[in-house]
Amino acid sequence: LSSAIRSGKVRAPTHVVSTICDDRGEEPTYAGVNMTTLFERDYGVGDVLALLWWKRSLPAYCTKFIEMCVMLCADHGPCVSGAHNTIVAARAGKDLVSCLTSGLLTVGPRFGGAVDDAARCFKAARDANLSPHLFVESMKKKGLRVPGIGHRIKSRDNRDSRVLLLQQYARAHFPQVRYLDYAVAVEDYTLSKAANLVLNVDGCIGALFLDLLASCAMFQAHEIDEIVDIGYLNGLFVLARSIGLIGHTFDQKRLKQPLYRHPWEDVLYTKATCIMQ
Amino acid sequence: LSSAIRSGKVRAPTHVVSTICDDRGEEPTYAGVNMTTLFERDYGVGDVLALLWWKRSLPAYCTKFIEMCVMLCADHGPCVSGAHNTIVAARAGKDLVSCLTSGLLTVGPRFGGAVDDAARCFKAARDANLSPHLFVESMKKKGLRVPGIGHRIKSRDNRDSRVLLLQQYARAHFPQVRYLDYAVAVEDYTLSKAANLVLNVDGCIGALFLDLLASCAMFQAHEIDEIVDIGYLNGLFVLARSIGLIGHTFDQKRLKQPLYRHPWEDVLYTKATCIMQ
Amino acid sequence: LSSAIRSGKVRAPTHVVSTICDDRGEEPTYAGVNMTTLFERDYGVGDVLALLWWKRSLPAYCTKFIEMCVMLCADHGPCVSGAHNTIVAARAGKDLVSCLTSGLLTVGPRFGGAVDDAARCFKAARDANLSPHLFVESMKKKGLRVPGIGHRIKSRDNRDSRVLLLQQYARAHFPQVRYLDYAVAVEDYTLSKAANLVLNVDGCIGALFLDLLASCAMFQAHEIDEIVDIGYLNGLFVLARSIGLIGHTFDQKRLKQPLYRHPWEDVLYTKATCIMQ
Amino acid sequence: LSSAIRSGKVRAPTHVVSTICDDRGEEPTYAGVNMTTLFERDYGVGDVLALLWWKRSLPAYCTKFIEMCVMLCADHGPCVSGAHNTIVAARAGKDLVSCLTSGLLTVGPRFGGAVDDAARCFKAARDANLSPHLFVESMKKKGLRVPGIGHRIKSRDNRDSRVLLLQQYARAHFPQVRYLDYAVAVEDYTLSKAANLVLNVDGCIGALFLDLLASCAMFQAHEIDEIVDIGYLNGLFVLARSIGLIGHTFDQKRLKQPLYRHPWEDVLYTKATCIMQ
Ligand SMILES: CC(C)(COP(=O)(O)OP(=O)(O)OC[C@H]1O[C@@H](n2cnc3c(N)ncnc32)[C@H](O)[C@@H]1OP(=O)(O)O)[C@@H](O)C(=O)NCCC(=O)NCCS
Ligand SMILES: CC(C)(COP(=O)(O)OP(=O)(O)OC[C@H]1O[C@@H](n2cnc3c(N)ncnc32)[C@H](O)[C@@H]1OP(=O)(O)O)[C@@H](O)C(=O)NCCC(=O)NCCS
Ligand SMILES: CC(C)(COP(=O)(O)OP(=O)(O)OC[C@H]1O[C@@H](n2cnc3c(N)ncnc32)[C@H](O)[C@@H]1OP(=O)(O)O)[C@@H](O)C(=O)NCCC(=O)NCCS
Ligand SMILES: CC(C)(COP(=O)(O)OP(=O)(O)OC[C@H]1O[C@@H](n2cnc3c(N)ncnc32)[C@H](O)[C@@H]1OP(=O)(O)O)[C@@H](O)C(=O)NCCC(=O)NCCS
Repeated sequence: LSSAIRSGKVRAPTHVVSTICDDRGEEPTYAGVNMTTLFERDYGVGDVLALLWWKRSLPAYCTKFIEMCVMLCADHGPCVSGAHNTIVAARAGKDLVSCLTSGLLTVGPRFGGAVDDAARCFKAARDANLSPHLFVESMKKKGLRVPGIGHRIKSRDNRDSRVLLLQQYARAHFPQVRYLDYAVAVEDYTLSKAANLVLNVDGCIGALFLDLLASCAMFQAHEIDEIVDIGYLNGLFVLARSIGLIGHTFDQKRLKQPLYRHPWEDVLYTKATCIMQ
Repeated sequence: LSSAIRSGKVRAPTHVVSTICDDRGEEPTYAGVNMTTLFERDYGVGDVLALLWWKRSLPAYCTKFIEMCVMLCADHGPCVSGAHNTIVAARAGKDLVSCLTSGLLTVGPRFGGAVDDAARCFKAARDANLSPHLFVESMKKKGLRVPGIGHRIKSRDNRDSRVLLLQQYARAHFPQVRYLDYAVAVEDYTLSKAANLVLNVDGCIGALFLDLLASCAMFQAHEIDEIVDIGYLNGLFVLARSIGLIGHTFDQKRLKQPLYRHPWEDVLYTKATCIMQ
Repeated sequence: LSSAIRSGKVRAPTHVVSTICDDRGEEPTYAGVNMTTLFERDYGVGDVLALLWWKRSLPAYCTKFIEMCVMLCADHGPCVSGAHNTIVAARAGKDLVSCLTSGLLTVGPRFGGAVDDAARCFKAARDANLSPHLFVESMKKKGLRVPGIGHRIKSRDNRDSRVLLLQQYARAHFPQVRYLDYAVAVEDYTLSKAANLVLNVDGCIGALFLDLLASCAMFQAHEIDEIVDIGYLNGLFVLARSIGLIGHTFDQKRLKQPLYRHPWEDVLYTKATCIMQ
Repeated sequence: LSSAIRSGKVRAPTHVVSTICDDRGEEPTYAGVNMTTLFERDYGVGDVLALLWWKRSLPAYCTKFIEMCVMLCADHGPCVSGAHNTIVAARAGKDLVSCLTSGLLTVGPRFGGAVDDAARCFKAARDANLSPHLFVESMKKKGLRVPGIGHRIKSRDNRDSRVLLLQQYARAHFPQVRYLDYAVAVEDYTLSKAANLVLNVDGCIGALFLDLLASCAMFQAHEIDEIVDIGYLNGLFVLARSIGLIGHTFDQKRLKQPLYRHPWEDVLYTKATCIMQ
């Protein structure tokens, strides 16, 4: 039977549909591009990512920008949730995959998740022709903070170098940066409220990613909506930070660190008296 | 210094707050109840769960009901998402924890998640004195299905024995079952539309859990809201199904099953031609 | 075609084999036992576990012992690796399943994994008629610690109540406890070396579980070997501790704890100067 | 107190040690290299990986080779364990991180794990001056297959293009390729046994990675041992395949695929009759 199916005589309905990579032929292809072509065209990691995530070959300035984001988000020290949980798992003697996933599972709304939110907000606001002033105030009225704005340490006179590097690159290479311009106009307004309400790295990536999608002329409007809606930037952060989390795992194993136990003194045990029936 | 802290001379602010279990004394306590007391009172798994999740000791008919839910949800065969991913991981030669977690990570809105939704909907509708008719029609107007209603195979004349067993138990032991009664009234109405729109096991657990919380007189109204809001029933499903997922892992290891590869014939590879710039 | 397969006319080779639970009939069955029977026989959580893990119905003293282990291992405070990572994930705003799995992924050789090791060692030693003295000294010669022996706080004159409770139960209800007796003889010998080398809770569960398997007369020798080899006791720990980890997740959500960031002051950043080519 | 600690007046012992990334200053540094330097030197993803995993800046031919491996291992279709579990989780409606980790948790001895094994075996054999013939036969005597050798479809006359591309690159750019030469000599010998016992992509990466470590003159012998021992190549595979797994998640979400249920017809339910006491 299964050879009958394979020979095409009998047609079974399939249970899975997949479109990004075909592994049935002589060599696997990414969105139809085979491995030999990949190297002949001198493609890099950013190009492979574009082929597998969007099934298209993006201009070099785009894939280079994607690689810059991966590099800048690769790690942010051992203290953040993701690195911390990975370190704890590594010190429990677990294998690499367990350490990595234990850390990745903390990525979400409060850690690493602001980039998509920033993209969504900036897109909605600018596409609706909301003035920065109106946008910020309407968020405030809803009791929400503007995602991508604000930093605990950085401020007007002490900018985050990552934000500067990304802006500089985009202004030099992107055909246009209208979402970045909008985000900067929002920053101008919020800076008039407090010196630390700068455009942060999440906000900058979010805005520039919108510019990338809009300016490369390879996505239709409904495709951009879908990308922003599904939240592809979260994928970029997760991939980037995996480099760091794997690095922390190796680091702890090299250092032969023992089992971590959080210190008792650092825990407030509130009086837990069981409520009896 | 840290001995100074421990001796109580210096007071450091703590970074963690925890209330369910104290492990600092002679023996760990669950919500203040120590291990010896646990056995002296002939407590069971359901009681431990109640102590750790709600920090209270619930009447026996409640903890017995919780155990019934754990038993009924412990497994549902190898074909559902969770068991399937666990089986695939086990056949890739992974350790028990990796197999279990690979499966658990499929639990969510479409698999195992309907219980909390059912509880939320039945609670909101009944507390607002919405007639079953109005409730169902208002859901329809919003384009939503009533969670906890409907089954692919079961119907009016072929009820799910799990639903019958739970109802029977609750009617015999709970002081009152007003949310169940409401759910059954909803079912009466939906059955008039189609024979398969029965109250399913998720809906039945959701409704009866509301009755448990309301009738044991050990929770204040705002506590019940919080429990329903946070989604404790998902925890019950996850815990229960872990028994099955661990069982499937052992099963595959015992059977020495080889690496699973999904059959090529079962995949529809859509033409992926790379869009070129 | 697929209806032809279903009707039995065509026989396709299957890609999956499964033996613990059948979900095809009127109601799912666990090892052939249906839900109605489960309640008619007044089965509990321990019985369901036995059906799904071993496909047999064990005597009541066995399933009660299993439930005791689940209860005693359900939690051990917020400071251990598992609870800690779960708490960090919960404070990052993640869903229940992510919090639970982030914590579970720390379970392994150094956290929760000693029970199976203890069972393996005690079984090998006693089955080979090694005297406790020879067993301990041969481990020492190999540079290994005896798993299941030793405690940081407990000692000869300050026993762990969990160990006492388990022993008491087993001596009262098990037909025989020869592996426990062996473990206690080992403890006698190690206590002559240092007062804190007591039989700990992992060692006690490991030894008694061997007694359960050997004395209930429902497992053949090769089945017992397989169970000890695969490491079923790890499953027991993982299932039990899930109750606690789920509890910690709810606890942090109830407490509305903010994102956890490990304090900078608690990290030793060693001089990392990049080695240049 | 904590400000006293921060000001350096009081010195608390730290509970965590970390060496790869410092996030305390103006901008995070990777092994001491700050973000601005990263871009001034025109570094890429491979350089960041080298900084975070080995705390050194490797020659360009090395980081380019690392990027080639990432590109070649980025995906291998929807049928392998990892992609399959990711797809199942995506179809259960789960978030990106859950989908990615559900798939990653299948990476291990049978899926993606052969690279490190191949490196370990080739290194041990060549460093011990074992002739290919003796190496293969000694493995056979131990009942083991040579990792990195053998392919289900490829053979002497139908080589894997990925293996050819990697070899070609290394022979053109590496100072020496003695481990690759050794692996090819092993392949010569195994090909004399059967036409499909070719050097596969895992074996090729494993051997060439040893050549990279040995020939760049930036690692001491004991450091190379440690790297091979800890298993860094697994990290390379995991990072690379994450691109594909994230891609599969987006693919399924774009395709709005419904909940996956494995077909009943594809499961062999063996007669499970409960063994009764
Ligand atoms: C970074 C951050 C926590 C700094 O906060 P902070 O300096 O401690 O600010 P406070 O919470 O004390 O707020 C000070 C004022 O600034 C306002 N504010 C802070 N962040 C704001 C934002 N993003 N948008 C608008 N207003 C903001 C506050 O509402 C407050 O106004 P008020 O005094 O009128 O009530 C905050 O800006 C923020 O949450 N930003 C968005 C987060 C983001 O993008 N995170 C990425 C994480 S991956
Ligand atoms: C189980 C289920 C899929 C069965 O669906 P089905 O018999 O294939 O039904 P269909 O999708 O063909 O729908 C048939 C009609 O019943 C209606 N219907 C189905 N489920 C309904 C529900 N839960 N509430 C209200 N109406 C429902 C449909 O809207 C449709 O009405 P229409 O013909 O006027 O458009 C469906 O009832 C359901 O999704 N129920 C809720 C799921 C739930 O609790 N799941 C637990 C999973 S863990
Ligand atoms: C609990 C434990 C860490 C306590 O260790 P400790 O009191 O700090 O003991 P030390 O490491 O200082 O060792 C003191 C001596 O006791 C010996 N010792 C400690 N544990 C031993 C054991 N399990 N078996 C044999 N000897 C042991 C040490 O070898 C050492 O002997 P030496 O002085 O001749 O070298 C240790 O006993 C242990 O690792 N036990 C096994 C762990 C186990 O079952 N863990 C369950 C975790 S889930
Ligand atoms: C790929 C592979 C499964 C192909 O196997 P196959 O063609 O089905 O081969 P068979 O299992 O039928 O074995 C045929 C003969 O080749 C031998 N053989 C197969 N692979 C071998 C290897 N890697 N080294 C040495 N001998 C091998 C078998 O022992 C057998 O010899 P015998 O007839 O004397 O018993 C097998 O070569 C293999 O397991 N290779 C290593 C796997 C590896 O690197 N995997 C990477 C996965 S990520």
